Amino acid sequence: MTGANHLLFGGDYNPEQWPASVWREDIDLMREAGVNTVTLGVFSWAFVETDDDQWDWAWFDEIIGLLSDAGIGIDLATPTAAPPLWLQRAHPEIIPVNRQGLRFHPGGRLGWCASQPVWHRYSARIAQQFGARYGQHPAVRMWHVGNELGGGNRLCYCEASSQAFREWAHERYGTIDAVNRAWGTAVWGLRYRSFDDVTAPLASESGQSPSLLLAFDRFSSDALLGQYRRERDALRAEGVTTPITTNLMLTVGGSVADYADWVDDVDFVAIDHYTAAADPHRERELAFVASRARGLARTRPWLLMEHSTSAVNWQPRNAPKAPGEMTRHSLQHIAHGSDGTLFFQWRASASGVEQYHSGMVPHAGSDTRQWREVVALGAKVRHLAEVAGSLVEASRVAIIADIPAKWAWEEGQKPLHDYPIERSGRRWHEALSARGHGPDVVAPHADLTGYDLLIVPGLYAVDDATVDVLTAAVHRGATVVIGHLSGIADEENRIRIGGYPGAFRDLLGVFGEEFTPLLEGERTALSSGAIAEDWTERLRVEGAEVVDAYAEGALAGLPAVTRRHVGTGQAWYVSADLLSGFDDLVDAVVAASGVVARYPVIPGVEAVRRVSDEQSWLFVINHGHTPATVPASGVELLTGDRVGGELALDAGAVAVIRETDAGSISAARR
Amino acid sequence: MTGANHLLFGGDYNPEQWPASVWREDIDLMREAGVNTVTLGVFSWAFVETDDDQWDWAWFDEIIGLLSDAGIGIDLATPTAAPPLWLQRAHPEIIPVNRQGLRFHPGGRLGWCASQPVWHRYSARIAQQFGARYGQHPAVRMWHVGNELGGGNRLCYCEASSQAFREWAHERYGTIDAVNRAWGTAVWGLRYRSFDDVTAPLASESGQSPSLLLAFDRFSSDALLGQYRRERDALRAEGVTTPITTNLMLTVGGSVADYADWVDDVDFVAIDHYTAAADPHRERELAFVASRARGLARTRPWLLMEHSTSAVNWQPRNAPKAPGEMTRHSLQHIAHGSDGTLFFQWRASASGVEQYHSGMVPHAGSDTRQWREVVALGAKVRHLAEVAGSLVEASRVAIIADIPAKWAWEEGQKPLHDYPIERSGRRWHEALSARGHGPDVVAPHADLTGYDLLIVPGLYAVDDATVDVLTAAVHRGATVVIGHLSGIADEENRIRIGGYPGAFRDLLGVFGEEFTPLLEGERTALSSGAIAEDWTERLRVEGAEVVDAYAEGALAGLPAVTRRHVGTGQAWYVSADLLSGFDDLVDAVVAASGVVARYPVIPGVEAVRRVSDEQSWLFVINHGHTPATVPASGVELLTGDRVGGELALDAGAVAVIRETDAGSISAARR
Amino acid sequence: MTGANHLLFGGDYNPEQWPASVWREDIDLMREAGVNTVTLGVFSWAFVETDDDQWDWAWFDEIIGLLSDAGIGIDLATPTAAPPLWLQRAHPEIIPVNRQGLRFHPGGRLGWCASQPVWHRYSARIAQQFGARYGQHPAVRMWHVGNELGGGNRLCYCEASSQAFREWAHERYGTIDAVNRAWGTAVWGLRYRSFDDVTAPLASESGQSPSLLLAFDRFSSDALLGQYRRERDALRAEGVTTPITTNLMLTVGGSVADYADWVDDVDFVAIDHYTAAADPHRERELAFVASRARGLARTRPWLLMEHSTSAVNWQPRNAPKAPGEMTRHSLQHIAHGSDGTLFFQWRASASGVEQYHSGMVPHAGSDTRQWREVVALGAKVRHLAEVAGSLVEASRVAIIADIPAKWAWEEGQKPLHDYPIERSGRRWHEALSARGHGPDVVAPHADLTGYDLLIVPGLYAVDDATVDVLTAAVHRGATVVIGHLSGIADEENRIRIGGYPGAFRDLLGVFGEEFTPLLEGERTALSSGAIAEDWTERLRVEGAEVVDAYAEGALAGLPAVTRRHVGTGQAWYVSADLLSGFDDLVDAVVAASGVVARYPVIPGVEAVRRVSDEQSWLFVINHGHTPATVPASGVELLTGDRVGGELALDAGAVAVIRETDAGSISAARR
Repeated sequence: MTGANHLLFGGDYNPEQWPASVWREDIDLMREAGVNTVTLGVFSWAFVETDDDQWDWAWFDEIIGLLSDAGIGIDLATPTAAPPLWLQRAHPEIIPVNRQGLRFHPGGRLGWCASQPVWHRYSARIAQQFGARYGQHPAVRMWHVGNELGGGNRLCYCEASSQAFREWAHERYGTIDAVNRAWGTAVWGLRYRSFDDVTAPLASESGQSPSLLLAFDRFSSDALLGQYRRERDALRAEGVTTPITTNLMLTVGGSVADYADWVDDVDFVAIDHYTAAADPHRERELAFVASRARGLARTRPWLLMEHSTSAVNWQPRNAPKAPGEMTRHSLQHIAHGSDGTLFFQWRASASGVEQYHSGMVPHAGSDTRQWREVVALGAKVRHLAEVAGSLVEASRVAIIADIPAKWAWEEGQKPLHDYPIERSGRRWHEALSARGHGPDVVAPHADLTGYDLLIVPGLYAVDDATVDVLTAAVHRGATVVIGHLSGIADEENRIRIGGYPGAFRDLLGVFGEEFTPLLEGERTALSSGAIAEDWTERLRVEGAEVVDAYAEGALAGLPAVTRRHVGTGQAWYVSADLLSGFDDLVDAVVAASGVVARYPVIPGVEAVRRVSDEQSWLFVINHGHTPATVPASGVELLTGDRVGGELALDAGAVAVIRETDAGSISAARR
Repeated sequence: MTGANHLLFGGDYNPEQWPASVWREDIDLMREAGVNTVTLGVFSWAFVETDDDQWDWAWFDEIIGLLSDAGIGIDLATPTAAPPLWLQRAHPEIIPVNRQGLRFHPGGRLGWCASQPVWHRYSARIAQQFGARYGQHPAVRMWHVGNELGGGNRLCYCEASSQAFREWAHERYGTIDAVNRAWGTAVWGLRYRSFDDVTAPLASESGQSPSLLLAFDRFSSDALLGQYRRERDALRAEGVTTPITTNLMLTVGGSVADYADWVDDVDFVAIDHYTAAADPHRERELAFVASRARGLARTRPWLLMEHSTSAVNWQPRNAPKAPGEMTRHSLQHIAHGSDGTLFFQWRASASGVEQYHSGMVPHAGSDTRQWREVVALGAKVRHLAEVAGSLVEASRVAIIADIPAKWAWEEGQKPLHDYPIERSGRRWHEALSARGHGPDVVAPHADLTGYDLLIVPGLYAVDDATVDVLTAAVHRGATVVIGHLSGIADEENRIRIGGYPGAFRDLLGVFGEEFTPLLEGERTALSSGAIAEDWTERLRVEGAEVVDAYAEGALAGLPAVTRRHVGTGQAWYVSADLLSGFDDLVDAVVAASGVVARYPVIPGVEAVRRVSDEQSWLFVINHGHTPATVPASGVELLTGDRVGGELALDAGAVAVIRETDAGSISAARR
Repeated sequence: MTGANHLLFGGDYNPEQWPASVWREDIDLMREAGVNTVTLGVFSWAFVETDDDQWDWAWFDEIIGLLSDAGIGIDLATPTAAPPLWLQRAHPEIIPVNRQGLRFHPGGRLGWCASQPVWHRYSARIAQQFGARYGQHPAVRMWHVGNELGGGNRLCYCEASSQAFREWAHERYGTIDAVNRAWGTAVWGLRYRSFDDVTAPLASESGQSPSLLLAFDRFSSDALLGQYRRERDALRAEGVTTPITTNLMLTVGGSVADYADWVDDVDFVAIDHYTAAADPHRERELAFVASRARGLARTRPWLLMEHSTSAVNWQPRNAPKAPGEMTRHSLQHIAHGSDGTLFFQWRASASGVEQYHSGMVPHAGSDTRQWREVVALGAKVRHLAEVAGSLVEASRVAIIADIPAKWAWEEGQKPLHDYPIERSGRRWHEALSARGHGPDVVAPHADLTGYDLLIVPGLYAVDDATVDVLTAAVHRGATVVIGHLSGIADEENRIRIGGYPGAFRDLLGVFGEEFTPLLEGERTALSSGAIAEDWTERLRVEGAEVVDAYAEGALAGLPAVTRRHVGTGQAWYVSADLLSGFDDLVDAVVAASGVVARYPVIPGVEAVRRVSDEQSWLFVINHGHTPATVPASGVELLTGDRVGGELALDAGAVAVIRETDAGSISAARR
């Protein structure tokens, strides 16, 4: 990834928040903890460009010098996450406008509109200036464009956004008639006569076309990507040759941008990931997200650019991480392919909105349990240096996840409002992980040829190309499982008429007549004894066989789960949202696909293998509250102990075994 | 009504959403189902007037020709529900302004302000153009002005609205002193000096006078009625002689406009009605609404202009209708006097906000359970043709319902916030229906002379004329039951001081000292064992006798339910909101009134009789889950079977018996 | 206070709401009830100044004459709570602007911005006019500036507010660098270059600095105080020599202004207090508030300027007061040092937003239970005349309450969002009151030298001076109990870094490493068996001893409650929010402090003693539902009965005993 022969360890460093006297202490503490990388500059703009084209580089040079002298690598940010007040006040037109048409006021983070020409000019200039001054500095190992692009400023409804949306629509659709067809403007008689009629979907008296809203989501993602490219290009124009990336915001339900479209533009995939304190199985959510990160990164390692040492500030109840959790989760990310673990932020702030966001150095300082865990983690990360650059062992099982499909579901009035369509994907990931399959999470347009089992949960809107690829996968022998709420709409958020789920009806051999969402708290039984909640469908088979049927109510006797043999593969349809009985379904699907577990199945223990051309490493993580025994052989890197067949793993502990049998590696790599 | 000798069957037809190739299929399917009426044009404006005064009639002519050739009647809409984008963009001043003073943006349905002169001009012109072109077309059987007037654009706070409100206030009150008195502007010292001070009640720093807010509700209703009249008059000016109406939005709690004031302006009453999927007794809500529709229609049949074949899109969980429910509910409306059953819409849309609103032709097409039920319903409707033009048998029992009284309750801070004042009316309707009384639901200014039992639940604000009428009814022998939250305020939303409930205190012989709303979850017992929730009162009798008393708490021993003999009648007061014990109260009231059941009392079975001068038809509807036996004699129209005394009625089934004994008819008619 | 030798009894009188014919009846009823004081003029501006500089004094002269002739004292309000419509329309710039930058519209109460120069001019003029005309009138016994300043218009974001905030910041901080440090603008890079950059914190794209928001709260409080001073000075300039005050809005959680800063500007403290109908122990909330009022008033009596006879209109369910509650609560306020009991309002309004706010004369008139209780209360108040001017006996126990500390907690993202930081203070007040300690409630800058036990609950932000005072208190022998969420931030809402709770760490001998807020519904046990909810901390002792420890979870074995002996006193720290076990803690703290109960401890009975130089009066209030026997000797003032050692007190009853043993008085007074 970054070409480093070690894993990255460190975090965001915001020295402008502290007096210079603290900087020396910072360097000493970083060395104590083994920090080798800090992200610098994210909020520094106002301190470097103190007024329009007035520059104060001295302090920033000093910081860079201090870090450089200490041998700490710098991930240098273009500071565009924090447009200075002087810019916001001189050019309020850069500040986003909300759906009501009201412009926000100066004084916020990410207070810019990605479509605003004035912003383009200023943001490119600051990037160019940073590139010119530090592009060749040896301590600057990589570049970090802005920060969390779209985190707050995803959508803007200003005039410049309308103009850019208009141009985007022209490019996408070509003619206004095509726009009218794509967005279904005939409904409610809101036909566009020309592209002049295209504007950002400002609040109208009533709801708006879900197709228009989806298009605006897509446009907005592209506009943010455009901003990334603009800054990246400004850096490259100044001769920057080190890697350039930005931090993508991933969670199971996150949908700021269609990151699958971004990965070709970043030199490596970097993500931010924050767990939810109230989620009792946040390690499973983490596993999903890390799997998605490696799905985006494909054949490259990726980097965990931000997570937290402990509590965050923005949840309703910001419980801290339990002792050991930071370590376990850091190593879990590395297990899944991250070439390091970086935190937001180095030192917890005393002021500002994020004053309660934890840091590597907490408010209470270094004589604390947390600091000691940070130092210990630094040592562990050093012990794992050899895994840098390796990849996670290829899986034969994948789950499809798609952000535009989530947008499509969320824009407009659906049979179930506020239904978390991503829930099903996480359930499949948990169940398949628990069975030792270590599933990948990939976007629909990824290369799917290597998979024997493909789960397609909640892929609400889908294009024909994806349908073709999935159909081909079945024909070549794969098992494809289409979950409820998949394939209903096309890529423009129009319902595919002629029987649900329109996109997959032929492949599945089913014909859905009507959706039957359940009422709040309503449950219905299937013949197998499974119980469904939230979602059922009136379905009939047209070529498929019935695996499970509805057992009561208006749908009694009708198919609930179906299977169709196609070519050498199988196409399953799961029309119900299963509250219970899901495990039996997963077992059946796995059996049908013929995939075999590649990791030991031990309750509470997660296993992931990273592999290089020469070697493999088995990561085992005990998320549970009881000790476990894990089959493994080789050398445990954190202790240096030799492991001969069995490893005792304490509750909460992590082990990383360099495996002895190198012969198994090439087989495991695609 | 429409003069047709059959019942209307069909729905909204929006051909502009579909390619012309689908139109032929539509016609074929309509014929298959027996569709005889479609509502056309609702969203067609932008396709007919493609730019300001640019007309494209060809396609619309073609559609009308296709329908006409197929013998399908047209209910032609003026397309003012859907002002074209070109109009919204050229004249954004037609778009409503919200309470904060912010104008909505182009792109919405019903995006117009009823007080805006520019809108008046354009909307009148399009109506005039439609009237001119199609006013004499034989297939156009009736006219449909706009669609759901006020459904979203009920209130507008723009300058033009303020000006119109000012003129309305001048007309209503005459002098600014009268306004000050009516609206209580002395409170908080907000006195108006002249009508120049009158504006729409835009959001101020604090709450506003409930009297001002009620006046604005009334004005807004009148402004919408004015819009109806403007379009109707434009049609009439073009020589239209067929009936003109618009679809009123009725539900138990609906309050878009004071429809009792509209009925003299429509040639027949047409309503839209949608049930709530989460309501386990939606058939009872339907019965209330249908009773209200016939109360508005008085001596004319009415028409169910819109309901849904199955799910809608705008509820939190849009469960579909159960098999048979569409049929049962359609026939239930007809039982209550509708001369047909029309649906929104013919073909479920693939796009747009309503893409998940069911249609007669579902997304899945015609090889579906739903389509087959539509076709079967069409046949049933044909079998019932002879009831067209008949009326529901007159009842001796009525419930008063009044929309301005509901507004009065909802505007301003009341003893109980967010209390559904309409709940009590529905409870009375259910209880009296279950006892075979088939109560009417009528507005306060309706002719009440025919009723022996009058229920007045939650008539919060009431004028003196209504008090006089109800008092006269008691004197002539009727039993009048005044429910809690009735008669407290006058027609200007001022509290009638001097003891509650001010309007009815004399009639009832009670003196209310104070209201005692109960806390969330609080319950209190009455002497009879009844339990009250939500509402109780500190009451004493002044001439009335105590029927039931409070049994605990601060009100222990004080009257809860009272009765006073006046003339030959009785005036009851029910001061508590009864959670249990309500059935005993209903029985006592019915007994007191002497009214006798006119329908058989069978659990789950609803009976309604329609009568003409020559004949009567008994509709019996089994809403329950078990078969029932119903006493009836005559000919069952749906099967043609002769019924001799008893009819077996399956669970969910409907039967319509042309009764043999015509002698009973004249007695039943007023 | 007002120099009267009796207690004040009466309420707000708004004659402009009623025809002149009612005025005579009002006077008669006031005399019947013994009303001796009415607040006049609050909403009269538009009726006196009918247009800009157009005056109509006649009717107001008449009212004043009527009251004067009847011997009823007048508390004359400057009518600035109700700017006339003519002023709001001519100068809409006086109307507040919200966070989004939208100005409200004319038509509201308190529709003014305290920083607007135009408003300054008009409000000063109307105050000057009132002062000039009535300043020497013998019936005008006191002045009431505006009404509930800030009740709705606390914050304004208009340009004038920004300008005033800028000047305020310049005054407070001196330099822009000091502002940048105080507000932590380096976070997110939002540095101010000059005071020109300072504006009201209008809504930005993201959250804003909690320090900026706290500063704006402080500024807004000062701006309201400035408005008070402006009107007061206008009165004084016209020669007014009678007392001037305004009504402060106190409840446990109220935080409209930092009233501790206002008390030097009012001639006596006057408060409004409304109980919550849904609060089952509203008498305890009242006791807290009354204790706070006397804490603000210090060595002067205070006045209950507004409470309600029964229900209010603005709660979700406005249950009335139970019979006797008005009386009991009125006398409870007097027990706590109020020199009277005034109500909003005299006559319940028929119209307007407050039409359901109860009055001394209810809607139902004078033949009502409520009116009879008002008349009886008037007699009781007359019987208590001799207590006028006396003070509540000094306590040795105080609870610290601070409004800016509450703002500091509520502004910004905290570990627990929406946590009611004031809850803990009320719990301590209840527990100490129940043990007979009659605690004071005082602001941090009050004189704390007289207290042996000081409770510091939720004093989230605190300045160094307060820390010094509390530290000194411990050194001199007091017991100081620091509760959780105290001392964490400094007075600028910056976290005090270096270990929690930064301000009190040295005093307490503890070191807090991390906060551990509990999840919704989560509970954790302490070693003592106590149960904590919501809040716990990772703590270690550094000199303190452990009183109680966490017993489970990640904190098992760590200190929860600590004590440190310092000088002759003790400093306790309670790090957990105790759901159970709190009573044991209170007992332990009380025992440690050596304070002894000064009132009898009888379940449900509250006792408070007022003392003068010559005499003492014991108020005993039975809030419970069973009779009680209370030890007391002297003369019961309400009955005139002599009490010899024991007094029988009915459920709900109040007694006031003039105590015989005057010797005990001087001991009880500081």
